Amino acid sequence: MRTSQTLISTMKETPSDAEIVSHQLMMRAGMIRKLAAGLYTWLPSGLRVLRKVENIVREEMNRAGAVETLMPVVQPADLWQETGRWDDMGAEMARLKDRHDRDFVLGPTHEEVITDLVRNEIKSYKQLPINLYQIQTKFRDERRPRFGVMRAREFLMKDAYSFHLDQETMDETYQAMYDAYCRILERMGLAYRPVLADTGAIGGSHSHEFQVLAQSGEDAIAYSTESDYAANIEKAEALALGERGEATQEMTLVDTPNAKTIAELVAQFDLAIEKTVKTLIVKAVEGAEHELVALMVRGDHELNEVKAEKLPLVAAPLTFASEEEIRAAIGAGPGSLGPVNLPIPVIVDRSVATLNDFGAGANIDGKHYFGINWERDVALPEVADLRNVVEGDLSPCGNGTLKIARGIEVGHIFQLGTKYSESMNATVLDPNGKATPLIMGCYGVGVSRIVAAAIEQNHDDRGIIWPDAIAPYQVAILPMNMHKSHRVAELAEKLYAELTAAGIEVLFDDRKERPGVMFADHELIGIPHTIVIGDRGIDDGNVEYKVRKTGEKSELAIDQVVEFFKGKFA
Amino acid sequence: MRTSQTLISTMKETPSDAEIVSHQLMMRAGMIRKLAAGLYTWLPSGLRVLRKVENIVREEMNRAGAVETLMPVVQPADLWQETGRWDDMGAEMARLKDRHDRDFVLGPTHEEVITDLVRNEIKSYKQLPINLYQIQTKFRDERRPRFGVMRAREFLMKDAYSFHLDQETMDETYQAMYDAYCRILERMGLAYRPVLADTGAIGGSHSHEFQVLAQSGEDAIAYSTESDYAANIEKAEALALGERGEATQEMTLVDTPNAKTIAELVAQFDLAIEKTVKTLIVKAVEGAEHELVALMVRGDHELNEVKAEKLPLVAAPLTFASEEEIRAAIGAGPGSLGPVNLPIPVIVDRSVATLNDFGAGANIDGKHYFGINWERDVALPEVADLRNVVEGDLSPCGNGTLKIARGIEVGHIFQLGTKYSESMNATVLDPNGKATPLIMGCYGVGVSRIVAAAIEQNHDDRGIIWPDAIAPYQVAILPMNMHKSHRVAELAEKLYAELTAAGIEVLFDDRKERPGVMFADHELIGIPHTIVIGDRGIDDGNVEYKVRKTGEKSELAIDQVVEFFKGKFA
Repeated sequence: MRTSQTLISTMKETPSDAEIVSHQLMMRAGMIRKLAAGLYTWLPSGLRVLRKVENIVREEMNRAGAVETLMPVVQPADLWQETGRWDDMGAEMARLKDRHDRDFVLGPTHEEVITDLVRNEIKSYKQLPINLYQIQTKFRDERRPRFGVMRAREFLMKDAYSFHLDQETMDETYQAMYDAYCRILERMGLAYRPVLADTGAIGGSHSHEFQVLAQSGEDAIAYSTESDYAANIEKAEALALGERGEATQEMTLVDTPNAKTIAELVAQFDLAIEKTVKTLIVKAVEGAEHELVALMVRGDHELNEVKAEKLPLVAAPLTFASEEEIRAAIGAGPGSLGPVNLPIPVIVDRSVATLNDFGAGANIDGKHYFGINWERDVALPEVADLRNVVEGDLSPCGNGTLKIARGIEVGHIFQLGTKYSESMNATVLDPNGKATPLIMGCYGVGVSRIVAAAIEQNHDDRGIIWPDAIAPYQVAILPMNMHKSHRVAELAEKLYAELTAAGIEVLFDDRKERPGVMFADHELIGIPHTIVIGDRGIDDGNVEYKVRKTGEKSELAIDQVVEFFKGKFA
Repeated sequence: MRTSQTLISTMKETPSDAEIVSHQLMMRAGMIRKLAAGLYTWLPSGLRVLRKVENIVREEMNRAGAVETLMPVVQPADLWQETGRWDDMGAEMARLKDRHDRDFVLGPTHEEVITDLVRNEIKSYKQLPINLYQIQTKFRDERRPRFGVMRAREFLMKDAYSFHLDQETMDETYQAMYDAYCRILERMGLAYRPVLADTGAIGGSHSHEFQVLAQSGEDAIAYSTESDYAANIEKAEALALGERGEATQEMTLVDTPNAKTIAELVAQFDLAIEKTVKTLIVKAVEGAEHELVALMVRGDHELNEVKAEKLPLVAAPLTFASEEEIRAAIGAGPGSLGPVNLPIPVIVDRSVATLNDFGAGANIDGKHYFGINWERDVALPEVADLRNVVEGDLSPCGNGTLKIARGIEVGHIFQLGTKYSESMNATVLDPNGKATPLIMGCYGVGVSRIVAAAIEQNHDDRGIIWPDAIAPYQVAILPMNMHKSHRVAELAEKLYAELTAAGIEVLFDDRKERPGVMFADHELIGIPHTIVIGDRGIDDGNVEYKVRKTGEKSELAIDQVVEFFKGKFA
């Protein structure tokens, strides 16, 4: 492609509403333009990347035995009423009425539509398992769309839905999708981790997120230094930290009138934060003996609300008690709580259970106990995994310790069980002729989000650094002052024609721009390989070859350019 | 692809709501399923065809120098308010509000969005001309969606928009698009005609429709027996039919109390229909001397309302006068009107102007004049082209006569002039630094409609007959009783593997179905080439090769099958 024949719209200024690097660079490199909040037009170079991502996703889905379909963007409301999600989805689901005043939605996802299709088309277990996917435009009316295409309202998604008679084929397809997602991200040249994920409100037994690693990622991932183990921080199991030590101190009641927080306590007293305990009071599940439950984690740890919510004694969604409720039940305020003499049930984190000689509130306003020891001073309560893991924790897989990385979720695979097939009565006849609800899996890839995630992971202060597989073009030809030098123009045209004929995707900068402008534009756009053609090189029979990622420069003999790139992209 | 690994959902029954053949066959062959009125899910085999059509369109657009982009489905209302189309579009444009109560539309077309993009990105004539396109989902809330994907509410469209400083490059791009559309339809193997079209409300000087020829087409096309001339019937010029003959009869007033229509007149009197004149009274343009105008065509011809509406004296939109209005102005009812003694302006069709000895109403209830001759009995009024052409008319190109065919509009190219660039203030600086409104062209292809149009043109009573270029698969392998014959199974697997490895798209029917079911399914689905593998053929070293289109059968030596197809699809 010649720059003169496409739309190269680079910008020097960073748009003020672009908060993250990928959004800034996609705007500056002329990949996207904003039409309205969360709505973007893909300009030619951006669309080329999007299509490459889409094609890799398609190829790997096909290879994994999934079959492509295409469902409408606009969906009738009645299917959503059938599953109850018409009410559950809230304002994130855009709704409209047609000219006959019938209700429709702009599909934020397609479980209802695909389950409706499958209940009509699949009658026998012999047609199973089947895995149907589409690559399609979705709309979610985000409360606060931002970060460009990372969190847009309209976006391109690959969504797949598999249907099964039995758990065995469900597990096989789940594994096939897991493997396909790994191949997709590997082929794109992205550093990523599949991480165990919480299944959240969707339920089901299995779920993995596929996270592209990037400093700016919204998600925290814990992974092992020694194994493949990785989990979303919400899900990562926190093991106990060694054995409990012996008691060496007496338990003493200390006046702590100005220490309402752990930070104030350790600042004012000679107490390590690792020897303190934080007490959080939450609502108990309905029908429990007490209305409140105390959850305790070490002073330097954070409560993991997802884990807490799953405890049988604790109400879901997790609800913290108010100060009034705490005072009514315990007789002291939230700044002075602890395990000794606490009149409500207590669940402590594993790392609290291994403490000795620790400090905690005395359940008397303005007082703490120091030197508490379990069993001697107070019975050890129920123990559970209650906290977020931190760097240096033992990996729950048994190998290595945990590190924390940040990631961008670009894929998510779920086992859904029979949630949708039961509410929509999607059954097949099993080998005995009995109607059986279908077991379902679903598998999403944020196709447009991958483009942004790839940039978050691959850029420098001059612009984007595309991995070869998803670059808008593989090679850029930059002729220096071609409008003045006939030789430069001739060689540039020749190499452009030959490389293109060899099936290599070339962006040929035939604009009348100064070399400095060209270099800046191409570093911004991020094409991985560049050939610079100048009069001086031609004298020596060379062109300059530059690698965007490393900045490395070398000479390439003119007559070897085509072979060089053929070999590179073979 | 193995049938066992995809979704083959054929139906014997024709769905009751499928009125036309393509809709019936797409449903029966399992290409599409209806989600709601005008909303269809594309099943695997249908989507394969859709993607092939899409890819041919994309390749030819790229070859013609157009550059691909992707604009959102959801568009902010303010752009539509800027051009006034927010009010003009009516109920066909679906509208919605987002969570912040802001107005949006589901894009029925993208002139506003692209013009907004271009006014922001294109600043200088040096960046022109540019032709930007997308292949994207559109939504039009048709009053009566029907005929499956032929007239769906959600559909896939290629829309391109070109921008120019001058008419010369506008004409060049228009021609490039014309040529690209011809190549697209030729590559698909479809019989089609580019036809001159009326520009209708959009205005502009040039417009062509691309019509796929099919008996069931909604549009009538007039084309020359001797040249490339073709035009939409609304647009085709009707020439005069020879010279006017001499007067041979006296003009006589005849009582015709029971002849209120031309049909009644010629049935009751000795008068050829070609010697009668039909008078239609319409409203005159505002400010004209008379409120009504009489339009006259021959009794056997039809008024062309598009042509009539363009006459300076006639009000647009064309409005017929009521009987009361006619009586008030003329003193006679609509069944007795004619040119003699008519007190309002008259415009006659060219073929009326060449009549001699003709009959027409006398402007007296229950009376006609017979034997009327222009000039002798009444002055020849204004003459214009007022009628639809009919078969046998001289072609306006000067070569041959006209024939009428039916077609399905699958493409439309327009020159829009500065309509949008002026209302949206989209200008560039010309070489003198002067801001100049952009000249614009637009070019649409109904991608999903082409699939249906191809079927309307290519089918028989057993099913679809796909042209090679857009068939869901190129070759079907039908093994006879493969589950009983090891030899058949082995050969089928071998040929499937070898053909697939050779890059040929094969549907391998590995279902445990009876041969009759297989043949019926594959004839319905319409794969152009079939290999039938049976024990008897294997004994002779042969497979049977069937051509779907002709029904021709022949023997192919087993060891030549792969080479045969490689040659065919090279």
